Amino acid sequence: MVNWFWQRRKRADAPKLRTRSADLGSVKVDLKDLTPGLLHVLGQSAYLQLTLFENLSRAIAHAPTTDAKEQLASAAALSLAKHQGLAALIRRHGNEPAAVMEPFTAGIDDFQRRTLGSDWNETLMTCYLTGGFLDDFYTRLAEGLPRDYADRVIEVLDGDDGGDRLVALLSAAIAANPRLASRLAMWGRRLVGDTMLVARSGLAASADHVKDEERIEPVFTELIAAHTRRMDGLGLTA
Amino acid sequence: MVNWFWQRRKRADAPKLRTRSADLGSVKVDLKDLTPGLLHVLGQSAYLQLTLFENLSRAIAHAPTTDAKEQLASAAALSLAKHQGLAALIRRHGNEPAAVMEPFTAGIDDFQRRTLGSDWNETLMTCYLTGGFLDDFYTRLAEGLPRDYADRVIEVLDGDDGGDRLVALLSAAIAANPRLASRLAMWGRRLVGDTMLVARSGLAASADHVKDEERIEPVFTELIAAHTRRMDGLGLTA
Repeated sequence: MVNWFWQRRKRADAPKLRTRSADLGSVKVDLKDLTPGLLHVLGQSAYLQLTLFENLSRAIAHAPTTDAKEQLASAAALSLAKHQGLAALIRRHGNEPAAVMEPFTAGIDDFQRRTLGSDWNETLMTCYLTGGFLDDFYTRLAEGLPRDYADRVIEVLDGDDGGDRLVALLSAAIAANPRLASRLAMWGRRLVGDTMLVARSGLAASADHVKDEERIEPVFTELIAAHTRRMDGLGLTA
Repeated sequence: MVNWFWQRRKRADAPKLRTRSADLGSVKVDLKDLTPGLLHVLGQSAYLQLTLFENLSRAIAHAPTTDAKEQLASAAALSLAKHQGLAALIRRHGNEPAAVMEPFTAGIDDFQRRTLGSDWNETLMTCYLTGGFLDDFYTRLAEGLPRDYADRVIEVLDGDDGGDRLVALLSAAIAANPRLASRLAMWGRRLVGDTMLVARSGLAASADHVKDEERIEPVFTELIAAHTRRMDGLGLTA
């Protein structure tokens, strides 16, 4: 029994040189007004990255081949570097990463449990899909941070996330066992709900809930479209 | 139930600026004649480092506090960097890391299972003690490699291994629960046998077994002395 989840990835269907921020640049609406305080964003995203790394690490321990282990180790190193980049920004602000992450651990640990997956392939799907979704989300959210922090957070999240390696491993697994496709497609659809919930917990609410929803909705529509492209890239119906 | 193990560390009782090779420099005997082929050393030590990283990663997932998680993440990043450094040397030689590691996976996976530990503290002990022992061992073994590779392998293994963080976590656990000391001391003693066996599997045997033993014995005496110093540093009887 495996038990873990996500990780950031590269968009499978996008030209290699497009960055995440470029991909999202065409959307008019943004989340700036709903960006919470700096330490909220840094603490929550740092702990999410650490959780992504944990999930990948567990996938390494259960990898079916030495080659898969080696591929996942590269992805895990990239994910750990993102966590460390965010932790460094917390220290730069004069705070201790553990203390700043603490308020977000219960919710994210719960998200981790709900998105465990029942085997290694489902876990890889979780790493790829929720990692991608949440990196996109935090990149967008970071735009509302003070300028110097915004740039640095986006730089950290925009880095190579090893997602191409996850896509390669998943594609090979599906090719070797075509019946896997329908199960993974269902798992991919199920992940969206939990991922949207954890993303929403990263938003500051204003007094005007209706207006908040008007801002949030188009952004999530965009994020779900990116999720669909990831599923398409694996030959799965979202 | 946790299940995993080791990791490299800094010598608890050594001045910070002494490196591992300096520590071992006073020993007259060496393993040069018993150093196997380059790819044997690189493949086996790269897979051992990957296994050390796996063990630390699982310790992260079961860490009792967010601060412990953060400390272990730093140690895991350092251990993964060592694996990647060795994998890079394999690629530099024109080979694929997974293929070169493959012959050693069964034996090391077995070692990993035997040294799992029954809880988080035992696992940290395994990370600290077996990592330290094996880094010392491979540093010594690398001296028998072709000069340019020898220097690079030693450079990789001599890097900071995050062991000071493991010592801090273990010391705090023992201070909080003094009864832990005798159990961890027993576990530390038990680890030596399995660790020596996996180290021996990294040696090339000559036709003269008696002479081999004469070479191996003093080196292992030195390695065990370093193990005893690590135990002492934790206030435990080796």
